[in-house]
Amino acid sequence: MTSPARTIVQKYGGTSVGSVERIQAVAERVLALRSAGHRVVVVLSAMSGETNRLEELGRNISPRPAGREMDVLLSSGEQVTVALLSMALIDKGIQARSYLGDQVCIRTDGNFGRARIESIDTDQLTGDLEAGITPVIAGFQGVDRDGNLNTLGRGGSDTTAVAIAAALGADECQICTDVDGVYTADPRIVDGARRLEQITFEEMLELASLGSKVLHPRSVEFAGKYKVPLRVLSSFEEGPGTLITIEKTTMEQPIVSGIAYARDEAKITMSGVPDVPGVASKILGPIGSAPIEVDMIVQNTGADGLTDFTFTVKRNDYENALTILEKVREQLGARDLSGDNKIAKVSVVGVGMRSHAGVATRLFDALAAENINIQMIATSEIKISVVVNEKYLELAVRCAHDEFDLGTEVVEEERIS
Amino acid sequence: MTSPARTIVQKYGGTSVGSVERIQAVAERVLALRSAGHRVVVVLSAMSGETNRLEELGRNISPRPAGREMDVLLSSGEQVTVALLSMALIDKGIQARSYLGDQVCIRTDGNFGRARIESIDTDQLTGDLEAGITPVIAGFQGVDRDGNLNTLGRGGSDTTAVAIAAALGADECQICTDVDGVYTADPRIVDGARRLEQITFEEMLELASLGSKVLHPRSVEFAGKYKVPLRVLSSFEEGPGTLITIEKTTMEQPIVSGIAYARDEAKITMSGVPDVPGVASKILGPIGSAPIEVDMIVQNTGADGLTDFTFTVKRNDYENALTILEKVREQLGARDLSGDNKIAKVSVVGVGMRSHAGVATRLFDALAAENINIQMIATSEIKISVVVNEKYLELAVRCAHDEFDLGTEVVEEERIS
Repeated sequence: MTSPARTIVQKYGGTSVGSVERIQAVAERVLALRSAGHRVVVVLSAMSGETNRLEELGRNISPRPAGREMDVLLSSGEQVTVALLSMALIDKGIQARSYLGDQVCIRTDGNFGRARIESIDTDQLTGDLEAGITPVIAGFQGVDRDGNLNTLGRGGSDTTAVAIAAALGADECQICTDVDGVYTADPRIVDGARRLEQITFEEMLELASLGSKVLHPRSVEFAGKYKVPLRVLSSFEEGPGTLITIEKTTMEQPIVSGIAYARDEAKITMSGVPDVPGVASKILGPIGSAPIEVDMIVQNTGADGLTDFTFTVKRNDYENALTILEKVREQLGARDLSGDNKIAKVSVVGVGMRSHAGVATRLFDALAAENINIQMIATSEIKISVVVNEKYLELAVRCAHDEFDLGTEVVEEERIS
Repeated sequence: MTSPARTIVQKYGGTSVGSVERIQAVAERVLALRSAGHRVVVVLSAMSGETNRLEELGRNISPRPAGREMDVLLSSGEQVTVALLSMALIDKGIQARSYLGDQVCIRTDGNFGRARIESIDTDQLTGDLEAGITPVIAGFQGVDRDGNLNTLGRGGSDTTAVAIAAALGADECQICTDVDGVYTADPRIVDGARRLEQITFEEMLELASLGSKVLHPRSVEFAGKYKVPLRVLSSFEEGPGTLITIEKTTMEQPIVSGIAYARDEAKITMSGVPDVPGVASKILGPIGSAPIEVDMIVQNTGADGLTDFTFTVKRNDYENALTILEKVREQLGARDLSGDNKIAKVSVVGVGMRSHAGVATRLFDALAAENINIQMIATSEIKISVVVNEKYLELAVRCAHDEFDLGTEVVEEERIS
């Protein structure tokens, strides 16, 4: 035991507990942490595929299943995995106890299917940890003030883990998944993509929102708010993963941390729109009510008192959005409605950008050198996104990865264990 | 609406909720009762096969899974069915709400895997019924004083239904299953077997214990204790089923109500045992500790100060019992140990027996007329059991059924609805 005893919350996703063998492997990993003297709390998802199976059962019963009952149905999946892992741990000589959401008072706000956690009573968990017991908690679920089961929606189990880590003041919340960390770019596209040793919450949030599917933005936001050190690591291989923190501890801050991308985007342009106050909400209002999620929005004002208005949506909302907007176009007397559903978004993310001018220029030049036309641009303090023709997606990602030298090796720190 | 509004607890077993289609069919049945103005509480089992599947998962994780965790695992099955039925009911315009054991405070005694119900808080259920809501309750589960989930073991969902009916003072507890009632004998053996209109708790208890698998003895005992009128009826067909009550309302009490049987029995005889006080417990003590369940026990005292001791066990305990008893035989200095694992038990059950002498004689004569040798006899106030060679089982059942005229038709009463 080289490192001091720490309190660690470990969350394992559906793939990591998808079979008896994998549950046994998870038990071995928990055993290793316990043997090293750490206090461990485990949070689990349902077995991979189970939540979908249950959801389908519900939809076979009713085209619009009652929300309260859907949550009762869906939360049965985690009940199975927490019981099985607890059995496996006990079998290996570790004291363990499973808990459902209501058994550790994970109080939620009563919004079925997308509840938010309001509070967690840590008395039971603290008592267990002091007594050398490993609590194994069902993720994704809570109970509202009226005693109804609630589920947390997408990214729910990650959020449970972060909330428990925050409530316990844990030293680290580890999200154990099927990738071994956060990469500078998708390794399937960029050969030289490199696992990041560290990344800030803000960067991770941008990466997560921009289609890097390692963590759900909600759990990252939650961890950032409560300053819970978050680590993404593999459930299957040893390795330090990627630590997500408030400030990087590395000496030199890289300008850019990673390149994210999103496929399956579409853009819609309404051109020749009379440029009067309130026109944006007249266009986007009906889209939001559909409800269709809008991502990038760009408006150019022309000299003739007319404006062009462009925004992006998910590709499978494209046809629906066009139908809605054709009516809006007539009402507004706009000239034209057009669109393109063969686009992709590529984003360069990094907190270092804040203090470095010229990142945008470097990106645009690099893309131009490859003859990639930029269709839209959007920027934030730590991110630049461009929309390009879908066929250039991979090329644009590799090009940006090279431009900012993201493939360069850094020395790795020692892994906690 | 011809009959007055009643409060009815309906329990559906695993086969009755084994698919989306069957759950929809159950919803239709509940709708019919509700439309007739009745207040309905539904209790459900898990989908058929689900409890076995979960149990196997648990045993694949650990050869001796922790009891607390096994109960968490197993109780997830009912969570799925109550959610699905509630959705189906809501979809049909019926107000419904699912409840897990802890949500209606089904307080159990903490014995994992075989808990007993201590109390049920009916506030929520009474409020729901008054508000026109149909509660749909997970059977087979409760929660102990420390907040642990408990399962009730075999016959658990029937027991939940009876307990809820008792706590609510319901007018009737209906056990909806894959048979349409309790029969005078197994219809697969006796062509003329007839569904009983009514039967007493005591008779049902004897029939249930004696291998008629319609109801678990535990739920019958519970219903008798709390005087809950219990009705067994088909989940799939219309029909009045069989009402189980304290006293039959039919004018004339039949002497015998039904013929039960048990296959898979075995008998063991220790002969030439010194006939001294305490010898029975020396023989049966080690059997009970094994633990092996003993059914009939017969002891004959001979003139030479020696006695023959015979008892029956389940057939799959036979070899084990013989091994244990060989040591006992040596210790006691008994002459011989022998056995027969090709026997069956046939029982004649009826409360009318109490006041009618000669039932035993009629049975013995009838069997003798068919040349069926009786190997053992045991009697209670309302039951006579005989052990015969297994090959005579069907013949003996038919013979007894004929002797007591059980195939005779009776006029049926109108069904409640």
